[in-house]
Amino acid sequence: MTVSPGRLHAAIAELATFNDDPAAGGITREVYTPTYARALDRVIAWMREAGLQARLDAVGNLYGSWVGGDVGAARVLTGSHVDTTLNAGAYDGVLGVLGAVEAIRRLREDGFTPRRTIAVVAWAGEEPRFGTGCVGSRCAAGDLARADLDRLADRDGVTMAAALREAGFDPDRVSDAVVDPATVHALVELHIEQAIVLETHGEPIGVVEAIAAPHDFRLTFTGAAAHAGATPMGLRRDALAGAAEAVVAIERIARASRSGTTVGTVGIVRALPGAINVVPGTASLDVDVRDSDEGAREAAVAAIVQAAQAIAAARDLEVAVADIVVDAPVRCDPAVVAASAAACDELRLPYRRMISGAYHDAMIMGRRVPVGMIFVPSRGGISHHPDEYTAPEQLDRGVAVLAGTLRRLAEEG
Amino acid sequence: MTVSPGRLHAAIAELATFNDDPAAGGITREVYTPTYARALDRVIAWMREAGLQARLDAVGNLYGSWVGGDVGAARVLTGSHVDTTLNAGAYDGVLGVLGAVEAIRRLREDGFTPRRTIAVVAWAGEEPRFGTGCVGSRCAAGDLARADLDRLADRDGVTMAAALREAGFDPDRVSDAVVDPATVHALVELHIEQAIVLETHGEPIGVVEAIAAPHDFRLTFTGAAAHAGATPMGLRRDALAGAAEAVVAIERIARASRSGTTVGTVGIVRALPGAINVVPGTASLDVDVRDSDEGAREAAVAAIVQAAQAIAAARDLEVAVADIVVDAPVRCDPAVVAASAAACDELRLPYRRMISGAYHDAMIMGRRVPVGMIFVPSRGGISHHPDEYTAPEQLDRGVAVLAGTLRRLAEEG
Repeated sequence: MTVSPGRLHAAIAELATFNDDPAAGGITREVYTPTYARALDRVIAWMREAGLQARLDAVGNLYGSWVGGDVGAARVLTGSHVDTTLNAGAYDGVLGVLGAVEAIRRLREDGFTPRRTIAVVAWAGEEPRFGTGCVGSRCAAGDLARADLDRLADRDGVTMAAALREAGFDPDRVSDAVVDPATVHALVELHIEQAIVLETHGEPIGVVEAIAAPHDFRLTFTGAAAHAGATPMGLRRDALAGAAEAVVAIERIARASRSGTTVGTVGIVRALPGAINVVPGTASLDVDVRDSDEGAREAAVAAIVQAAQAIAAARDLEVAVADIVVDAPVRCDPAVVAASAAACDELRLPYRRMISGAYHDAMIMGRRVPVGMIFVPSRGGISHHPDEYTAPEQLDRGVAVLAGTLRRLAEEG
Repeated sequence: MTVSPGRLHAAIAELATFNDDPAAGGITREVYTPTYARALDRVIAWMREAGLQARLDAVGNLYGSWVGGDVGAARVLTGSHVDTTLNAGAYDGVLGVLGAVEAIRRLREDGFTPRRTIAVVAWAGEEPRFGTGCVGSRCAAGDLARADLDRLADRDGVTMAAALREAGFDPDRVSDAVVDPATVHALVELHIEQAIVLETHGEPIGVVEAIAAPHDFRLTFTGAAAHAGATPMGLRRDALAGAAEAVVAIERIARASRSGTTVGTVGIVRALPGAINVVPGTASLDVDVRDSDEGAREAAVAAIVQAAQAIAAARDLEVAVADIVVDAPVRCDPAVVAASAAACDELRLPYRRMISGAYHDAMIMGRRVPVGMIFVPSRGGISHHPDEYTAPEQLDRGVAVLAGTLRRLAEEG
């Protein structure tokens, strides 16, 4: 197989120049902006250079198809996204699109001709400009209706419907973007790991067996705000002290989860009124619990709620629980996993069977069609940050495994 | 003794109408504003009705003097402040000024003539408009120099010097406001408790034996921000989890302090980057530790820092400690305490000997002259809030104890 890591690396670097905030040091390229549209045009040009037929669907998902010998056979999809969060890195999403184009080039250069059509896809809006992520793949999965496009809005109040119109799309045609699952044989997404599991174990490739999904909720503790100097310790109802005990309990419960793969995180904490000389009367925690094992995840959530209630009772506090997001995890398709494992074996690359703790477009589509994912290491686990980095040779190994996976899937009967 | 609770209650209600933000529901009357000046004019009128000679010093401290028979004898000062925080209550500070005027009226109506001059004072700026509180009493104590008035600035960047000029004072004359300690026999301040100690114990009066002072500092834990879904529990360096353990430790250490009077509070917590799907890489706690026993307080601070360092070491985090404010506590003068206790006994009022956990102007002056404080209950301990409340009969008992205290102090040889 021809190896051209320089070509992929150069394309990633060039796409990074489509950037609305270069002064910040990272990349800002939100979906449906003019900068995003110009980046898509560049991707379309690369797709055409690779012999792919490019088209945009009704919500801006970009498909580049290598038409197979059996035009009636269900397609093989591969892709990710080229939008970014604010001040982000160059690899998240981009690798899965440009790496797929590179994989197609290599298969073509190696003389392969697919039986099934292989389509590279750049899903629109994986990053949550409109609060919810994966809007493009959610439309393809049929999970978003016309009314949702008026409901979802960005931090400036621009709805997804308005943003679509501004970008030249017709939100009333959202249902045209739905992909019939019967027409998809399999989907495989190449992505940076965004964590340090592969780096810690010194492994070049992760073959994903399941994609975890979050149960996000808010715990709000209410006690009594009081003067920090004048109120003796024994007369306090300190909401933050209760919340702090809960943070420690959340960590302990996640670690002790029966699946061994549950993670529990408090990413946001608020204490009110928020003055150094006032005992907090209210404290809230935004909690994210994830697992590929939904039963273990829900058992952990139940244990956390129970612990929070016990802490509140012991401290004469109130605690309220409000769900934010509850998503179902997805198991990868054994045949897709097997194809990636076989590709690694053929290349004599060691790999780790692992779960994806992060959300991906593949999770959304995985509820409808057979999916798999391939991970490459992220240096230091850093992502959504200018320092995000994966070395060219690591990228290349991922592309090689993707190419081998696509070849197998496109040949399958 | 004549009792006119209605007169004091009416005055407190009238002063509450000098308010820059009545729509908020509470009282906003910051020092050196036109509204504050009009409120001072009203206080001056009440002072004159009570037979007091009123004058403003160089920084706007208002003195109303009842000249005693022995004009050469050191004076007795009593007072508090009539500025407020934002959207505050009607009693904090105001009681100590209008209640003192009422006490003078009663002493006069009872036919008392003082040997020592008694001066009612309304200190300028007890509330921290300029970041630091008690600016008027700090000037009187000689703790603020001309240069400090250019350094201290409010949230809009207006310096204390500029605010003084705008209010018609000359900041270059700040040293004229210094009170020679030799001219002060004693100072006593009547104040609402701002906590629930008296309410909890069902006691009408607190006689303060010491005023606690804070040691405020910031603990900043640094770990590694990481994807909340993708980073297994065993590979995290979660700064907030460490900070949460520290919050619990701070509470435990304050409760176990050797003095029994130490309080430790975390009023402000910050976790960054502050997204539900990111393990916090940085978390800071603003910690307030207070005690009237400075040794016990510093031992608690040292134990907290040690605990934070141990938590950080166990979690592979860094922790930094930065002082914010370190003030010295003040012991009340035994003779002033005895005068208030005797006044209570004479009135057959039970009272609690207690410490003041809150800052007061008396703490600032207490480093220079003999001081004491008298507390009345605060309903629910609520202060700095529109719901701040003390019942008229509770106010009246405080005024009666203040009058008895002033009578004793003004008669002392």
